[in-house]
Parts: sequence; C-alpha cells; structure tokens
Amino acid sequence: MTINPREKAIVLLSGGLDSTTTLAIAMAEGYACHGLIFDYGQRHRCELSAAGGIAKDAGIPSSRITIDLRTLGGSSLTEDTAMPESGGSVGIPATYVPARNTIFLAHALGWAEVLGADNIFIGVNAIDYSGYPDCRPEFIAAFEAMANLATKTAVEGTHRIRIRTPLIAMRKKEIIETGISLGVDYAKTHSCYDPLPEGLACGTCDSCRLRRKGFKDAGLDDPTPYAPEKP
Amino acid sequence: MTINPREKAIVLLSGGLDSTTTLAIAMAEGYACHGLIFDYGQRHRCELSAAGGIAKDAGIPSSRITIDLRTLGGSSLTEDTAMPESGGSVGIPATYVPARNTIFLAHALGWAEVLGADNIFIGVNAIDYSGYPDCRPEFIAAFEAMANLATKTAVEGTHRIRIRTPLIAMRKKEIIETGISLGVDYAKTHSCYDPLPEGLACGTCDSCRLRRKGFKDAGLDDPTPYAPEKP
Repeated sequence: MTINPREKAIVLLSGGLDSTTTLAIAMAEGYACHGLIFDYGQRHRCELSAAGGIAKDAGIPSSRITIDLRTLGGSSLTEDTAMPESGGSVGIPATYVPARNTIFLAHALGWAEVLGADNIFIGVNAIDYSGYPDCRPEFIAAFEAMANLATKTAVEGTHRIRIRTPLIAMRKKEIIETGISLGVDYAKTHSCYDPLPEGLACGTCDSCRLRRKGFKDAGLDDPTPYAPEKP
Repeated sequence: MTINPREKAIVLLSGGLDSTTTLAIAMAEGYACHGLIFDYGQRHRCELSAAGGIAKDAGIPSSRITIDLRTLGGSSLTEDTAMPESGGSVGIPATYVPARNTIFLAHALGWAEVLGADNIFIGVNAIDYSGYPDCRPEFIAAFEAMANLATKTAVEGTHRIRIRTPLIAMRKKEIIETGISLGVDYAKTHSCYDPLPEGLACGTCDSCRLRRKGFKDAGLDDPTPYAPEKP
C-alpha cells in the first residue's frame, strides 16, 4: 500500500523490535524516511549501534542526537541501580524514564519542521508493553494537538504534523508477523534492557520477556542470543 | 504574596530579562525554585554565564542541560547565518528556533517528575514578543494538557503539573516594573541576540529593541551597555 509516495517522515529508531517494524511500515507506505536516534545515556549501549545499522541497511539518512537524561536521573535505565526483573510488579516499573517520549518527540518535532516532514513515526505500543504512561493513545493525541500549536509551519497553516503510531494497538505477536511479512531481519534488532558484556540478552527483563513471548505466540523462531537461564 | 510556601518549582532560566523576572515572581510566591539552564548551542553564549550568575545570586540550585539544536538547524540563533535586524518584517522571524520551547519544557517536565515539582515557570510573553508560536497561551495550555498525560505521577494521580507563565499577558514595561519592585538587578541580565565581542549589546536586534522600548515606556534607565549606533 503506497498512500503517500515520497512524503517525508521522521522515524524514531531505538534499535529495538518495535521501532524497526515501525520503520518497515513507514517505508512500505512510501514515505521518504529519516531516522532519528537518541543517545540518552542508556545503559544498554548496543541499542545505538543496532539503530545505526538498521538505518544503514534500510538505506535511509539518519541523525543522532545526544541528550543526557542522566543529568536528571530517576530511572534504572540510565542509572547504575539494579535492573528489575520482570514479573508480577504492579504499576509503572523502575525502567520508566521520566518524560522520555515527550523529550524524544519534542526533538523530532523540531527536526520535522526543519525538514518539512509532516509525519513522525514512533513505535509505541499500549498492549504488550511495560505500562509507561507516554505509550498510551491519549498521550499521543495530546502531543499531536500540542505539536500543531507549537511550530511556525502549524501557525502559518502550511503543514499539519501527525504523530503516527502503527503499532499502538497490536499485540507483540502481530508486530513480529507484520515485520516478517515486510522483510525485517529481527536478528539485527536489540531489545534487552540489561545485556551481558558478551552481547547476550539477559532473557529476564521486561523487554526480553515481551519479545520472547511475541515470537512464541507467533510460532516463530526468536533469533535473539539469550544468556543461559539461571539454575 | 506567599501562596505556596516551599512547594517546589522549576524555573527555566535564559539569563534574559523575562526569565529573571519570572524567577523573582516564583520566589516571591514562596516556591522552592530550581533553575534549569539550556546550552543549546546558542550564538549568544553570554546568556549562559548570565543565567548561572542569576541562579547563584538568587541562592537557588540550578542544573544545566546541553542539547545541540544545531544538529537540526533551521534558525539564525544557532547557525552562522546573518542575524536579522528588527523592524518591519512580517510573520515569524529567522531567530525562531524550531520547537525550542517544546524541547525545553519537555526536559523540564522530566526533571519536575524526578524532583516532585508540580510547577514549571517559563517567561514566555505573547504581547511584546517576536511572534514565536510557542510563546502563545494556546500552546502553553496544550503543553500542560499533554504533560498531565505523559508522566508516571500524572497517571498515578499524585501530582498535577502546571505550566506557569506569569508574564504571558504583560507588556515589557510591566515586566520591568514588576521586576524592579521585586529587587531584580537588570544590569545582570542579558537579552541581545547578537552581542559584540567586547560584550556590548547590539541595540538593533528584536530582543534589544523590545528591551529598550520597555525601559523607555517604564520611564526607567536601561542599565544595558549598548554599542554606539551606526551612523
């Protein structure tokens, strides 16, 4: 389906399964995609090289922005505190990074305005997810409303920004099936929050757990190299 | 007037006249203020030292965040293009930085959540201003609505974020009069977009023009060292 041939889009790339699938969807829809990669001091640094590789493989230009969220603190994803294992925890987990998607989308909005891109794709998901508030449809809708009051192009009426979230209502299984149908090589994606030094995924963090279950539910082999399970 | 004794507030500090007055208002209202200063690659680097000095003089803690908006481009404030002189230009000027206030407020929101601050003060003004879209009340209202869907504390219902804009409906004259009544020393503030190497304000950019007119309208001496007028 090519609905918007060569219109420009910005695609937020984390190197993970969701954003890589989102890029494949945006490209299949015919957008001229520009990858936006954030170095936010994340502990899982291999995300960054995965994201760069995914943009390169897709043959799209990309830009990397460094923002030090560690200055602000408040998350186990950016601080040297214990990484929680997944499981029966209630509420929003310690891996939540305060206002992360707000900050990412704000930067994307600035770049969209400079490029003249009307679409910003972000791979948020409100089904098989970790319960982060800034992954929910009501947050995305509110951000889009704000974005259309924030920029010169919006005020001058020349462009309307759309925040595109093709995965938001999909189960992880469907996301993987969609990606496979579009030729995504998930071996090149990285999801683990707390990888081992030798590059193995931990297999037990929230992100690994959701990924493993997705492949299992889809009846597909998970190409991820996981660490051996603890006895 | 002390309406919220020792509640925490984040105050965005640029080193300029507006944000310094905003800090004085927030402190007069009794907030425990935390200054947030952005190094965004601005050409007018003396802003940064002014902002740090203002926080220090006020005896408040401050944090400085580096974000390189030059990566994205799109403004004469961050690029080596000619600085426009003020005057009869129509529309939004070249000094507009794409999505700047959205990006600043997004970072402030993250810090507010970490600190447990409910109030974010920003010195935007929609009267004597340069016509930037992200200084308008409708933008601020939309950002506040989004912010209250974006964060863990909002979702858990423990805090409601307020974006406070005490200057938004003031003329520059009133801003200066308010600051003087609260003891602001405007000699320590910096407004010029394009200062001369010897530290003199150019006197002709939009920001200088608004500042000069404000002091004149208030019938007060402007302590700013301006460059001699061009013949």
